[in-house]
Amino acid sequence: ALASAIAPENLSVVVNIGDDESIYGLAVSPDLDSVMYTLAGVEGSAGWGRKNDTFTAMESLAGLGVDTTFRLGDLDLGLNLMRTQRLAAGEPLSSITGHIAKSFEIGSTILPASDDRVPTRVQTAELGELSFQEYFVLNGAMPTVTGLRFEQAADAKPAPGVIEAIDRAEVVVIAPSNPPLSIWPMLAIPPIREAIAAAETVVAISPFVGGKPVKGPTDRVMASLGYDPSHAGVVAGYDGLLSHLVVDRDPPDVDVKCIVHDTMMNTPELAASFGAWFGDLWT
Amino acid sequence: ALASAIAPENLSVVVNIGDDESIYGLAVSPDLDSVMYTLAGVEGSAGWGRKNDTFTAMESLAGLGVDTTFRLGDLDLGLNLMRTQRLAAGEPLSSITGHIAKSFEIGSTILPASDDRVPTRVQTAELGELSFQEYFVLNGAMPTVTGLRFEQAADAKPAPGVIEAIDRAEVVVIAPSNPPLSIWPMLAIPPIREAIAAAETVVAISPFVGGKPVKGPTDRVMASLGYDPSHAGVVAGYDGLLSHLVVDRDPPDVDVKCIVHDTMMNTPELAASFGAWFGDLWT
Repeated sequence: ALASAIAPENLSVVVNIGDDESIYGLAVSPDLDSVMYTLAGVEGSAGWGRKNDTFTAMESLAGLGVDTTFRLGDLDLGLNLMRTQRLAAGEPLSSITGHIAKSFEIGSTILPASDDRVPTRVQTAELGELSFQEYFVLNGAMPTVTGLRFEQAADAKPAPGVIEAIDRAEVVVIAPSNPPLSIWPMLAIPPIREAIAAAETVVAISPFVGGKPVKGPTDRVMASLGYDPSHAGVVAGYDGLLSHLVVDRDPPDVDVKCIVHDTMMNTPELAASFGAWFGDLWT
Repeated sequence: ALASAIAPENLSVVVNIGDDESIYGLAVSPDLDSVMYTLAGVEGSAGWGRKNDTFTAMESLAGLGVDTTFRLGDLDLGLNLMRTQRLAAGEPLSSITGHIAKSFEIGSTILPASDDRVPTRVQTAELGELSFQEYFVLNGAMPTVTGLRFEQAADAKPAPGVIEAIDRAEVVVIAPSNPPLSIWPMLAIPPIREAIAAAETVVAISPFVGGKPVKGPTDRVMASLGYDPSHAGVVAGYDGLLSHLVVDRDPPDVDVKCIVHDTMMNTPELAASFGAWFGDLWT
């Protein structure tokens, strides 16, 4: 949404890599790709993958008896092949991401939180500890999340440019994502958390609209981890980092400044409208 | 061709792996796949890849600035992804090949010459030493071949079943392939050469039809390596291993028994006709 209201060169997007995984032997980075596909206007209608993609390679894999629950379209596959090969050759993820963003003519800076692997481990009541995609895709985000482990995060280094982008930012915006699953993996990297803690203006956009998350298991995950699945729970989930919270309505009684505005962004028009309002607010 | 005339369980095909290579980070085995696609009736019309394949992933790679001279269709890509992942997990190529053949409902036994990597190195007048696919695909088989190196072949072990298949065979048939590029890499593995040398009946089908190879650079490669590009040169190229040579016409004056019969097999009908004749001849 912000991309439509801010000059691309003034926008840096730091992206979660906790859900990166090896699928069919390929290094997939679903969040990085979703961000880039969205900024390039080629995102899939289902909220993942590429618009108008085909699934011919998946058909072929299925014919060979491979479980293809994790769907990668043929266009998506091309990108993942390229990334996998470059990673194997020793190129850092941030550099590869920069190349992809340039190929898609994205003017903003897209940065993975780290060039190190920091996979989120999801502890569940029903199935024990799972990798992120085992939890999210293979089990449809149905297991009850009882804990999250970001063990390697303590030693991970932020990717080049991440701390600089946070330090330089007039406003640090936390997207209306699932706080535990999509934002905590970045906050678990100590220098990233410290840089955000030092920022004057840190605005989260609540993922709750009309009291419910627009998509995904945010409410269930927050509740099972002991956070109220609400605007107030979001503030608690960010544990003192926020200066502001944008909510659609019913501002909670919390120790951060709440701003009420329509946060529904499930169409390009709504996203552009939100971006224009938000941009005006902070400039 | 033989597959149409011989009961599948009586046919074992030992396949060259000298042209196996890593392409886009994937372990491709072009000869193995061509044999399986042909036996399954799904081979591409151009002599490689799959029938009616699409090239969406290649488009995606090209858009990211990757050189896509080596074309892998989306169906083909699925198979190569599966093979690459299983190889990385430590499964031998012969076992993976058996699984693929079964998925394609191929009743014959398809065996890679070896589970070891035995890449053919092509020495050229113009470009020095190249990998097989650098020579064949990236440079369109245009450089002058001055030598071939099968260095790792001396230590390679035949894949399980290869020697048994040769020892058990009533007839060892050498396909009408390019002798130096497609058959020598297998003969360079000492136990394979010894097993064929010990076989009573070894029949090569000459790749020359009407004095010219049906496709590919067989004549140029043989000539630049010092072999007459002719039926006689094929016999010389197999250096005492043959008992019989099948030629389309003009049997050469050589020390093996020549059998004259139409060897053109560029349509399924001609291949079936050849197979029926050949099967009758040896049973």
